[in-house]
Amino acid sequence: MEITLDKAEFTKSITRIQGIVERKNTMPVLANCLIKAGKNGIQVMATDLDVTIIDSCPAKLKKSGPAGGGICLNAKKLYEIFRELEEGEVALTETESYKVELKTQSRDAGFVCELQGINPEEFPVLPKEEGFQFFELEPELLTEMITKTIYCSATEEGRFVLSGIFMEKLENEWLRFVATDGHRMAVIDREVAGSKELVFDKGVILPKKGMSELVKLFSAQEAEKGKIKLGVKDNHLVVKTENTIIFMRLVDGEFPEYKRVIPEDNPIKVNLERDHFLKSLRLASVMVDEKARSVKLNFSKGKLLIEGKHPTYGRAEGECPCDYQGQKVEVGFNDRYLFDILTSVGAGKITMEIKDELSPVLFRTETDTKYLCVVMPMRI
Amino acid sequence: MEITLDKAEFTKSITRIQGIVERKNTMPVLANCLIKAGKNGIQVMATDLDVTIIDSCPAKLKKSGPAGGGICLNAKKLYEIFRELEEGEVALTETESYKVELKTQSRDAGFVCELQGINPEEFPVLPKEEGFQFFELEPELLTEMITKTIYCSATEEGRFVLSGIFMEKLENEWLRFVATDGHRMAVIDREVAGSKELVFDKGVILPKKGMSELVKLFSAQEAEKGKIKLGVKDNHLVVKTENTIIFMRLVDGEFPEYKRVIPEDNPIKVNLERDHFLKSLRLASVMVDEKARSVKLNFSKGKLLIEGKHPTYGRAEGECPCDYQGQKVEVGFNDRYLFDILTSVGAGKITMEIKDELSPVLFRTETDTKYLCVVMPMRI
Repeated sequence: MEITLDKAEFTKSITRIQGIVERKNTMPVLANCLIKAGKNGIQVMATDLDVTIIDSCPAKLKKSGPAGGGICLNAKKLYEIFRELEEGEVALTETESYKVELKTQSRDAGFVCELQGINPEEFPVLPKEEGFQFFELEPELLTEMITKTIYCSATEEGRFVLSGIFMEKLENEWLRFVATDGHRMAVIDREVAGSKELVFDKGVILPKKGMSELVKLFSAQEAEKGKIKLGVKDNHLVVKTENTIIFMRLVDGEFPEYKRVIPEDNPIKVNLERDHFLKSLRLASVMVDEKARSVKLNFSKGKLLIEGKHPTYGRAEGECPCDYQGQKVEVGFNDRYLFDILTSVGAGKITMEIKDELSPVLFRTETDTKYLCVVMPMRI
Repeated sequence: MEITLDKAEFTKSITRIQGIVERKNTMPVLANCLIKAGKNGIQVMATDLDVTIIDSCPAKLKKSGPAGGGICLNAKKLYEIFRELEEGEVALTETESYKVELKTQSRDAGFVCELQGINPEEFPVLPKEEGFQFFELEPELLTEMITKTIYCSATEEGRFVLSGIFMEKLENEWLRFVATDGHRMAVIDREVAGSKELVFDKGVILPKKGMSELVKLFSAQEAEKGKIKLGVKDNHLVVKTENTIIFMRLVDGEFPEYKRVIPEDNPIKVNLERDHFLKSLRLASVMVDEKARSVKLNFSKGKLLIEGKHPTYGRAEGECPCDYQGQKVEVGFNDRYLFDILTSVGAGKITMEIKDELSPVLFRTETDTKYLCVVMPMRI
């Protein structure tokens, strides 16, 4: 195989796949990327067996390898090398036994690099995009739905079914994303024209790693403009941009009955200014015990006091005005859960709906009625 | 004790001392800072027993504590609290048994904080500045002498005497800093008017931690302008800025006879452009074995080839023009040592003086004849 490509273009591709490349040593082949001839150039592929990314890169194929073959090189090394090269053309030539020579134009005249690859047949067989039914949407919309829920998904290896985002079709082309780790939950609904094309029944669980890779991809400096395509088939989700395809294996299993966790008639409703809430929370959380991380929210007429108490260093209390007019109520929370919600909702008014000190508390925003969070209080 | 102080001013003081505060749990008292009445306000002090910092902060002392007393509070907590406060006046009031209440002006109206301190008598006795003979110098000059040598000092706990910078008085008010870890060495000479005031014979070893704290202090955003004062007495170095005093215990022991390590008549002299050298080194070091870290420098007529070879991934070679005209010579180096030197010397021409592939190699710059580095080659 012999390819000539542009340093900047290939650097984009090799950068995009870095997040998928396996860093652990469990399956050494997954530290490699596979480079194959594709339309208008080459395809650069990486997989961790759950998430697969295929990136198209313009290139001149001077000599193709054996039919269906390609070159299989360590993805991190390739990235490190290209980072150091000057702009311009780079030639990749397969010399012997999976060895590839890199050469650059005159400006890096003295640069020589031989990269030892492996047999491309060792690379796993990748999923194909045939048979998927796609619909288009804005990457910003998908990014919003992911970032406003993903922080609630579980990290523990034990609760596999919670380590993702549940995607559900609602009526009239509305789509819902739900994530929960058992202690808190976020639910977001958005109208997504065309989402009726999604072929599944109740819902599917999107894997956390794949979702965060999508957010990285869309927000990267070199991100492509324009709509993306999304499709689900069997146990895979596919997302396509103009030059990149990401496949991800859906999380197997039944997502819990999340709807019954959403409190419906919490009698206490308190309106607060998010920025003030956040500031007071920051003050109180300075004194939070590093392990327990609990802050106490104390509501009384017209004000919320947020208290952090440290067994050794003392206590701090921040005050935040609110419209509460009832009897004193105290609820304890993990301060990080509150930070996550306040970061996620952005500036504006938020409403807390409380039943009592041990029942789940609902957080809503004034401007976005289709987004809510539920948090379990901590005993204090 | 009752003090009123300005948030911004106190934040400066508490920020400056953070680097000295002990993070390890070996002596819990050292996680605290001691706040005492001082002229024009208060003094904020921290020590790790080797390095001590005393910072002056303007404050109104409304009520002094018992004679010679003070308040002793966790320095990190205090820093975290002040970071969250709004600008303006803050009142610190000792209430009971070493407990201190913090109160802010109306803007943080609802903020209450009680910080539990410890008995100030538990705080170590700190060195005093009496008896030191000081001379003045520019902080930039001291910073240069430190940063151009400190990277060569040893980190290993075993070679205690090398874990610092050797300071030596030369003739005519010149001062020399030397650091070495046994594999490499840096020597810098600078004319420092007034340095004859330094009271020691052969030289003293300045501790690494204290030196890097000085660099941080001088380069911090809130660094003070103007000259600093420096003095040595017994086993301590003192550095004074307008508001800050740093004491550091000198490293005990005999610094090795470093002069005989400096090669004097290395026959091969090669001139290279530092930027090109650095670029070629970067290319080659992509393929360096992560553990051995060796690059090979291959000199032949008119050019230097720098080669990195990885047992698994292949090899990379960068070329750098030079004025060498002799027979081929090959010398191996730890690539990090070369990066350190090239970073330290900055842009311009550098000269390598080589004897053979196993003898120490000398690095000089064209513009600064009073700075040199020596590096031991690696067997390749």
